[in-house]
Amino acid sequence: MLFKVEMKVNLPADMPAEVAADIKAREKAYAQELQQQGKWRHLWRVSGTYANVSIFDVTDNAELHDLVSSLPLFPYMDISVAPLCRHPSSIHEDDR
Amino acid sequence: MLFKVEMKVNLPADMPAEVAADIKAREKAYAQELQQQGKWRHLWRVSGTYANVSIFDVTDNAELHDLVSSLPLFPYMDISVAPLCRHPSSIHEDDR
Amino acid sequence: MLFKVEMKVNLPADMPAEVAADIKAREKAYAQELQQQGKWRHLWRVSGTYANVSIFDVTDNAELHDLVSSLPLFPYMDISVAPLCRHPSSIHEDDR
Amino acid sequence: MLFKVEMKVNLPADMPAEVAADIKAREKAYAQELQQQGKWRHLWRVSGTYANVSIFDVTDNAELHDLVSSLPLFPYMDISVAPLCRHPSSIHEDDR
Amino acid sequence: MLFKVEMKVNLPADMPAEVAADIKAREKAYAQELQQQGKWRHLWRVSGTYANVSIFDVTDNAELHDLVSSLPLFPYMDISVAPLCRHPSSIHEDDR
Amino acid sequence: MLFKVEMKVNLPADMPAEVAADIKAREKAYAQELQQQGKWRHLWRVSGTYANVSIFDVTDNAELHDLVSSLPLFPYMDISVAPLCRHPSSIHEDDR
Amino acid sequence: MLFKVEMKVNLPADMPAEVAADIKAREKAYAQELQQQGKWRHLWRVSGTYANVSIFDVTDNAELHDLVSSLPLFPYMDISVAPLCRHPSSIHEDDR
Amino acid sequence: MLFKVEMKVNLPADMPAEVAADIKAREKAYAQELQQQGKWRHLWRVSGTYANVSIFDVTDNAELHDLVSSLPLFPYMDISVAPLCRHPSSIHEDDR
Amino acid sequence: MLFKVEMKVNLPADMPAEVAADIKAREKAYAQELQQQGKWRHLWRVSGTYANVSIFDVTDNAELHDLVSSLPLFPYMDISVAPLCRHPSSIHEDDR
Amino acid sequence: MLFKVEMKVNLPADMPAEVAADIKAREKAYAQELQQQGKWRHLWRVSGTYANVSIFDVTDNAELHDLVSSLPLFPYMDISVAPLCRHPSSIHEDDR
Repeated sequence: MLFKVEMKVNLPADMPAEVAADIKAREKAYAQELQQQGKWRHLWRVSGTYANVSIFDVTDNAELHDLVSSLPLFPYMDISVAPLCRHPSSIHEDDR
Repeated sequence: MLFKVEMKVNLPADMPAEVAADIKAREKAYAQELQQQGKWRHLWRVSGTYANVSIFDVTDNAELHDLVSSLPLFPYMDISVAPLCRHPSSIHEDDR
Repeated sequence: MLFKVEMKVNLPADMPAEVAADIKAREKAYAQELQQQGKWRHLWRVSGTYANVSIFDVTDNAELHDLVSSLPLFPYMDISVAPLCRHPSSIHEDDR
Repeated sequence: MLFKVEMKVNLPADMPAEVAADIKAREKAYAQELQQQGKWRHLWRVSGTYANVSIFDVTDNAELHDLVSSLPLFPYMDISVAPLCRHPSSIHEDDR
Repeated sequence: MLFKVEMKVNLPADMPAEVAADIKAREKAYAQELQQQGKWRHLWRVSGTYANVSIFDVTDNAELHDLVSSLPLFPYMDISVAPLCRHPSSIHEDDR
Repeated sequence: MLFKVEMKVNLPADMPAEVAADIKAREKAYAQELQQQGKWRHLWRVSGTYANVSIFDVTDNAELHDLVSSLPLFPYMDISVAPLCRHPSSIHEDDR
Repeated sequence: MLFKVEMKVNLPADMPAEVAADIKAREKAYAQELQQQGKWRHLWRVSGTYANVSIFDVTDNAELHDLVSSLPLFPYMDISVAPLCRHPSSIHEDDR
Repeated sequence: MLFKVEMKVNLPADMPAEVAADIKAREKAYAQELQQQGKWRHLWRVSGTYANVSIFDVTDNAELHDLVSSLPLFPYMDISVAPLCRHPSSIHEDDR
Repeated sequence: MLFKVEMKVNLPADMPAEVAADIKAREKAYAQELQQQGKWRHLWRVSGTYANVSIFDVTDNAELHDLVSSLPLFPYMDISVAPLCRHPSSIHEDDR
Repeated sequence: MLFKVEMKVNLPADMPAEVAADIKAREKAYAQELQQQGKWRHLWRVSGTYANVSIFDVTDNAELHDLVSSLPLFPYMDISVAPLCRHPSSIHEDDR
């Protein structure tokens, strides 16, 4: 089941550089693990901004929440979620 | 080059049913043609709404405009566009 | 799987009264059928407005879309959807 | 009498972890007490966000304020309130 | 129990003058009846606009909805509702 | 002359408790003084929020500003003001 | 007593040209009459838009409403009002 | 003197095709005339939308209004205007 | 050439009182100097808020920026600018 | 390929003056280098604000992101991006 998730990062201006670097490193490792598992199917940068557009592929709403709320950057992001489903004009039976 | 395009359809309440049906049929044929060509890579319905989230894969901004403005539903849609690029945490060299 | 769905009705001012009455009658019948089936678990009026707050209980995003987009009032409503899941402070294993 | 209450939590980025943990523990205990009393009838997490959708069942506006403003997280939340009542299409005499 | 209700009137530009006059006459009669009953405690015009600020005094959310949705202008108004209660700094036990 | 004034309080999360308590005590005393004088005719809490809806009765715009900008909480509030006047459907010559 | 009034004109696209011309002619005559009386002290066009910024000088909120709601274009305008008063840094005792 | 002007076109859905074609033809001729005169220095389409971003080079605010309000599409556009000036980091003395 | 400039002041809650006092004193002196020169033609307080509505009379966009960006409070204000010109219904050749 | 990029600067009020000066100096040097290369084709100040309107001329979305996200002020700016293309009414084959 797919969801579009948009995340905008707002790190505090006074966060020490090494704290930010640590959070980002853990975020990257976790994001790549979820991609390897096929849970985080697409991850794109929005050009010119510190934001991304993502497509998650999860079992249900609960799993979506578990994955997203475990992101190391979760406390510092504005997040919007939209549930997706097959579009009647799609040529793909299962567009993931 | 990828773009996220979100389209929300607002057909006039007084549009005759056969006019609407014709526009929708042409929209579907055109959308499927662009998908076959690989220009319209993803097309998802936003659950519970008359709206979609799409990923276009085009040569440049001009081609994006040509494709989107040729949609039969173009005069009846609110459209927002976001340019996308590779995310540094993506595990895909070329995530399309 | 639960979703909060908020619907705000905007009937055109020039819709003939009998057309409106027919749509509303079909809407009511359909809404009650979905409630009987347990798909539409809660349906509340927002006091002072022509709007409702609803809780849907569906298998997945696709079923949510099928149910909501089949509403006779669907073309005349502003609809917003939020996916829900268990809250860690809830005392209910399965709060429906 | 029912109210939909939506709460979005914004803890300051520099709040010490033990202070946050204490507030959250007290919030959970209080939320569960109100649920036990039947005052806080539903409590759902909005998937992917640090926010909830709640249904309160109270005697009047004053009790709603007393309950909500006593939440330990109250100073850190954006809160919106909508009064609810029976929907004419509801199949429940008293949908709580 | 008090509610602040704000109403903004949007009559269609092409509504015949006598239809508008009839709706307004019925609106006025109904508004004055509710004021006589003490249900509609305050009714003020917002200077420079076709809008009002009102204070309703009702038994519960259901009565609020019954009264407001029966307004002849109801289909033509944007309405927002806020539940009110005693302010701790008020000098009135029962400020109506 | 009446004005609706809505005030939403945003105290800084790191304000020392005794400072906040002092400001609130002075705010309460001042609010009650203005109510005694008949300048601040109504003061209601918006249920579930740290906000109020107020009706001021002043000589002119200048007095409104003097009274509101002298509030001890003034630097910490989002404030919106709407000038009010007699509504043609009001049954009160002078609804205060 | 001064008020800033901003008016944005939205004439219906299908209003007959002679109806629009008549409304505009009456609007102009009325606007000039109010300026002659000193009630409408300033009237500026916002460059590039069908909108104006105005300063009204009236006895009270009621007169403001009487003047503005009598504008022939009143039913076709979005109007916002802000009460003004002397600024402590103004060099004018009475800046009109 | 430069201004950024953004224009979004909203033609009524029921405008006859030949009327729309005529307006667009006159708009194009006028736009090209202003470009030839150097008044409309840049004119870009916003990809995927019926909107443009323009840079006008005019003598003053009055000329800007004269030019923009004379556009045949003026009654059908949402227009926003921002005055521009030299940026201290620009390498151009006169960036037009 | 006239511009409407609206300024809303947001001083940081933790700014030392003497720092704020110094900025405000310099702001006042500078504002009065510009008024003496006829550059800042009108300066009004918006009643009930820490905001003003101003009319600037400048040679061009560049001078407007120089004047406004030199305000001691400039870093602490939300500022919006609208270019103004003669309104066709104004009775003043040159309404300043 | 052209993009309109709008940047609004929000430096923290408590940033030391020398830190701000250093960031701004690096920003200016980098902005001028990109202009020399023809990547940053236009850079205008929005009069009265700490914001700019820019036109970038880049190979693709990825280059746009590389350039913009490398700006020393990037962490302190609200940025919005719009992809541009040739307008059918433009008299320029290649309006840069």
